[in-house]
Amino acid sequence: MAEGKPMFRKLALIGIGLIGSSIALGAKKKNLVAEIAIATRSKETLAKAKALGLGNRYFTDPAQAVDGADLVILCTPVGAFRGIGKAIQQYLGADTILTDVGSVKTHVQQALGPIMPSYVNFVPGHPVAGTEHSGPEAGFAELFEGRWCILTPLPTSKSQAVAKLAEFWKALGSNVEIMDAAHHDLVLAITSHVPHLIAYNIVGVADELEDVTKGEVIKYSASGFRDFTRIAASDPVMWRDVFLTNRDAVLEMLGRFTEDLTALQKMVRNGDGDGLEKLFTRTREIRRSIVEAGQDTSAADFGRRAKKP
Amino acid sequence: MAEGKPMFRKLALIGIGLIGSSIALGAKKKNLVAEIAIATRSKETLAKAKALGLGNRYFTDPAQAVDGADLVILCTPVGAFRGIGKAIQQYLGADTILTDVGSVKTHVQQALGPIMPSYVNFVPGHPVAGTEHSGPEAGFAELFEGRWCILTPLPTSKSQAVAKLAEFWKALGSNVEIMDAAHHDLVLAITSHVPHLIAYNIVGVADELEDVTKGEVIKYSASGFRDFTRIAASDPVMWRDVFLTNRDAVLEMLGRFTEDLTALQKMVRNGDGDGLEKLFTRTREIRRSIVEAGQDTSAADFGRRAKKP
Repeated sequence: MAEGKPMFRKLALIGIGLIGSSIALGAKKKNLVAEIAIATRSKETLAKAKALGLGNRYFTDPAQAVDGADLVILCTPVGAFRGIGKAIQQYLGADTILTDVGSVKTHVQQALGPIMPSYVNFVPGHPVAGTEHSGPEAGFAELFEGRWCILTPLPTSKSQAVAKLAEFWKALGSNVEIMDAAHHDLVLAITSHVPHLIAYNIVGVADELEDVTKGEVIKYSASGFRDFTRIAASDPVMWRDVFLTNRDAVLEMLGRFTEDLTALQKMVRNGDGDGLEKLFTRTREIRRSIVEAGQDTSAADFGRRAKKP
Repeated sequence: MAEGKPMFRKLALIGIGLIGSSIALGAKKKNLVAEIAIATRSKETLAKAKALGLGNRYFTDPAQAVDGADLVILCTPVGAFRGIGKAIQQYLGADTILTDVGSVKTHVQQALGPIMPSYVNFVPGHPVAGTEHSGPEAGFAELFEGRWCILTPLPTSKSQAVAKLAEFWKALGSNVEIMDAAHHDLVLAITSHVPHLIAYNIVGVADELEDVTKGEVIKYSASGFRDFTRIAASDPVMWRDVFLTNRDAVLEMLGRFTEDLTALQKMVRNGDGDGLEKLFTRTREIRRSIVEAGQDTSAADFGRRAKKP
């Protein structure tokens, strides 16, 4: 790929946090775009992106960044999409592919679909990848390698545009899946949104206890708690917007979580050893499958500490 | 330490899983004991321990292993302690230190305290360290380095024995804390037991869904879910026993978790963006403190994937 002609003339990235900067670095490394324009509202963030050399041109106004772009990717928290959409709609060209990296998709379709001109190829997307770090300095070109990117085309999306966008993500190292937006939101509610919510919750509980000090929570965190603090350190605004825009699917999956937790609590109260052991044995299987699918490491403690032979 | 005289003549390890084998490897590496006797009920596990060269003598009968030992450490799931205590009580010598590595301490004191001869130095302990792997082949000498070991002496414990046991754990690389057993059980309920319970629960929920396939859960697990599967892959029998023996503290902390989760659920339902963002910002702080305290890595994704410069 690095030898041939770039897939796109000009990529405009609106928002340049962990995901935006990783796309910029990956697209440059693989020679997927001839030019990158970056827009972000914050002058500080824009200065960081410039200092890191992530793009070719830098703007605080998204309308200027999208001018002449044949690929536009929205990489801000999803709550900002509607405003950005209104700002850029009349500056998008006829052959432009407009996509995004938001963690919810029904809302994105509803927020942007109705206000986009029919000549724009709007194909919502979601690279299922990330770390707990945020900001333009957190990005790296390999973030998407071996991860899945889900595209949720509208009924009106042109198949040619969907295929070209899929090729772009594959070139960044992703596997690509096409999915209905509502199903995406349900799948991500259980694999991502509810896990984040309960991680934020347990960390919040531990932070507020009176009979156990914060120092004790920190000292003894290696016994399990610390695993939850990683995802509870994710970007607060991004996650606020996820819960504001995927409410129904999150409440549905959260309902199932609390139902099962109530049953588990009863097992603990009643001293139901057989029931506990049965659940604890069943849950081992899923981890094995995740490791086999290449979606996690088999190293003890995520390989945090090398096992010396 | 490796040059001098070993601290103990003979160490007896009753149970030889992840923790027992890590103690054996660490004690040998640091020359802390002259001889190691290993006892485990399972002939298969004993054969593995022998093949790994973890000790000097191997038994299926714990009474034979403790004969002549000046340090005895119970490393089985805590549910087996009472039976082991009865089997070994009359074979323990007058200067013997008897300790354990169980994750609950009030129960251990109650199960073993009353049946031990007064000349035995019984000092319950808990190294707050582990991985999701289990069995004698999962152990490594460095497991305890930089982690905390909590000792919960009885009012009758001789301070000399407590100090000697503390030295042993320090020699294995641990920091040592002395704590009241009931407080230990409360602290570990929030830092370890409830986190494990909710991890087991979310993995159990994801495993049983009908509208989201298991294949989808596995594919998209990198978005958060996979973090929970690590601790939900921990040893089922050990964890069954934790919940059977630390019921009250677990139910207390679980109650606070569900109270806060109900409040959080309401924020999601009501679209309370400010409340959500406030919680998600507060929880970042604890992670920073844990990383600063050397209890976790600052590398993105626990360092699962190296960030290339």
